[in-house]
Amino acid sequence: MADSVVSEKKIAASPEEVHPHKAYGWAARDTSGHLSPFRFSRRATGEDDVRLKVLYCGVCHSDLHNIKNEWGMTIYPVVPGHEIVGVVTEVGSRVEKFKLGDKVGVGCLVDSCGSCNSCEDGFENDCAGWVLTYGVIASDGTMTYGGYSDFIVAPQRFVVRFPDSIPLEKGAPLLCAGITVYSPMKYFGLNQPGKHLGIVGLGGLGHVAIRFAKAFGAKVTVISSSPAKEREAIDKFGADAFLISRETNQMEAAAGTMDGIIDTVSAVHPLNPLLSLLKNQGELILIGVPEKPLEIAPYSLIRGRKKLAGSAIGGMKDTQEMLDFAGKHGITADVEVIPIDYLNTAMERLARNDVKYRFVIDVANTLTHP
Amino acid sequence: MADSVVSEKKIAASPEEVHPHKAYGWAARDTSGHLSPFRFSRRATGEDDVRLKVLYCGVCHSDLHNIKNEWGMTIYPVVPGHEIVGVVTEVGSRVEKFKLGDKVGVGCLVDSCGSCNSCEDGFENDCAGWVLTYGVIASDGTMTYGGYSDFIVAPQRFVVRFPDSIPLEKGAPLLCAGITVYSPMKYFGLNQPGKHLGIVGLGGLGHVAIRFAKAFGAKVTVISSSPAKEREAIDKFGADAFLISRETNQMEAAAGTMDGIIDTVSAVHPLNPLLSLLKNQGELILIGVPEKPLEIAPYSLIRGRKKLAGSAIGGMKDTQEMLDFAGKHGITADVEVIPIDYLNTAMERLARNDVKYRFVIDVANTLTHP
Repeated sequence: MADSVVSEKKIAASPEEVHPHKAYGWAARDTSGHLSPFRFSRRATGEDDVRLKVLYCGVCHSDLHNIKNEWGMTIYPVVPGHEIVGVVTEVGSRVEKFKLGDKVGVGCLVDSCGSCNSCEDGFENDCAGWVLTYGVIASDGTMTYGGYSDFIVAPQRFVVRFPDSIPLEKGAPLLCAGITVYSPMKYFGLNQPGKHLGIVGLGGLGHVAIRFAKAFGAKVTVISSSPAKEREAIDKFGADAFLISRETNQMEAAAGTMDGIIDTVSAVHPLNPLLSLLKNQGELILIGVPEKPLEIAPYSLIRGRKKLAGSAIGGMKDTQEMLDFAGKHGITADVEVIPIDYLNTAMERLARNDVKYRFVIDVANTLTHP
Repeated sequence: MADSVVSEKKIAASPEEVHPHKAYGWAARDTSGHLSPFRFSRRATGEDDVRLKVLYCGVCHSDLHNIKNEWGMTIYPVVPGHEIVGVVTEVGSRVEKFKLGDKVGVGCLVDSCGSCNSCEDGFENDCAGWVLTYGVIASDGTMTYGGYSDFIVAPQRFVVRFPDSIPLEKGAPLLCAGITVYSPMKYFGLNQPGKHLGIVGLGGLGHVAIRFAKAFGAKVTVISSSPAKEREAIDKFGADAFLISRETNQMEAAAGTMDGIIDTVSAVHPLNPLLSLLKNQGELILIGVPEKPLEIAPYSLIRGRKKLAGSAIGGMKDTQEMLDFAGKHGITADVEVIPIDYLNTAMERLARNDVKYRFVIDVANTLTHP
């Protein structure tokens, strides 16, 4: 039987029947983004697979984009969640890295081609054949479903070990937010003591970015449209300075001072004032994904040989390295732990940035089978 | 007497009177861009200065932008010209690098601060205090005038030696076009054998870029909106492949194949199709300066950690290195040598890209004092 026939058959099957194991979670069914209980199924644990009971799952801003189909790629029903922390309940015969009871994490990816240059170099995040943890059709032709659910099965290559020193609920957001800021700091050479790093936006990504940058020994300036965030950025998270993006005088006074800028904002916003903050040869790295194109004045790149770059999450080796680094330096996210039936309210609050700084669902204690 | 008083006095003086030595060239007086004979003056040769009689001067596309004030920065009257080749006629007491009769060049810069990090690293092209060869107010408070003129005086640091093996008229465009393509190839690591380099636009910059890239051992693909240029790109300049930018099939077939792209186009054009040609971590380097902002879809940078960069000309050390490399590899521009009184027609033709591939003014033989 050809693969394509298998695929068609599996897609045609209902989410509850396609796999042998009953699973349960919360899904959005349409562009309203309203989330509600959802029955589906998970595959049996393969020889290279790890099965984990979900304990906590972070609520990423991209979950909000996805449930409302704001990027135009959503396949409903969608079970979001890619900041998953859990405990190993089953391992395949070839799994040696993990054993029952281990505390582990699953982030944004559950598969990749495994053979391209990017995969071979440890950058599964750049693989053209990556398989996202939820909302896409995997290589077996079935949909992937995320961590707003009771358990998940993932290949051991996409499972990371959770350091003992990190409380699970505060560590969950590191699986997406953490690696998304850690990876570009590392690969654009901003993880060196004495670098001056700008961080645009003080939200789920931004507050974690400050902590990693400070742990690397950088000088950190937060750039934000919200003056109210200054005290918290400096007093709580340890930023060295704060710029209000619309205050032209402040921005001009800081012109040419930064080695690099991590831009976490996922709304359309002007880039040229940010480029002007960079030293020559500096890099502005986009990690937020606005829905519409951004404008760039070529001269603002040409003068001083500056760069506009992008970065998406990080590779699996770096994800483990990031977690270990976070464990060593006590880096966690500031979270508001919520029961799963608070999700729709949480999404409304997230849409108006009313969260400090990440919602994390207490899945194990609040997801009850009906 | 304060510097500002000196400056005001000098600016107030007429172009003919501000300096001791009478000079003569062609200038544009207003946004019509019409060029006509112009009397002005040049400074005496200082102890670190080199005076040269202009033999040839290339006509760069930025000259056209400038005479029509298309970048909004023109101070009239403007004497363009920054691809200047000449013969040394006088040297200051501290000049040891050059002697009377030497064949030399002056490019886009005639001064820089000399003390910033960029200057100290040999990147005068990134110095915030750079002084362009024409159209700006220099540190002594007087206007700079370019190479559409009988002679020029420049500090020895901004004068380069012309290799004997390069015919002067064919080498003149290297002073801007040459270094503008050479420098980013070097600094973005594209000057290695086996790299696959895209070159967007087959004009004054593009045709020279192919030759440098081939001399570096790269595989070169030209991307152009003009199908008519394919044969010339491949047969004459040695490109390995040619893509028509609006042919979606061709562009998609080449997706993900290029290590870097040098984009020479100075008109507004779509960047996202170019970014899709890059391998992961590849760089699209803008060296043309469109008048309006360009649009960029953040995801096209984020997926595969690609970069959009800019580069302006190059430092003086690299300019000499580029000329020596060109001399060794026989790299020159394809030029149409014109008398200076053909300039207005040449500018009209340049505006409609009707030149293969660079106009060069035979200054010494055709600029006659009235």
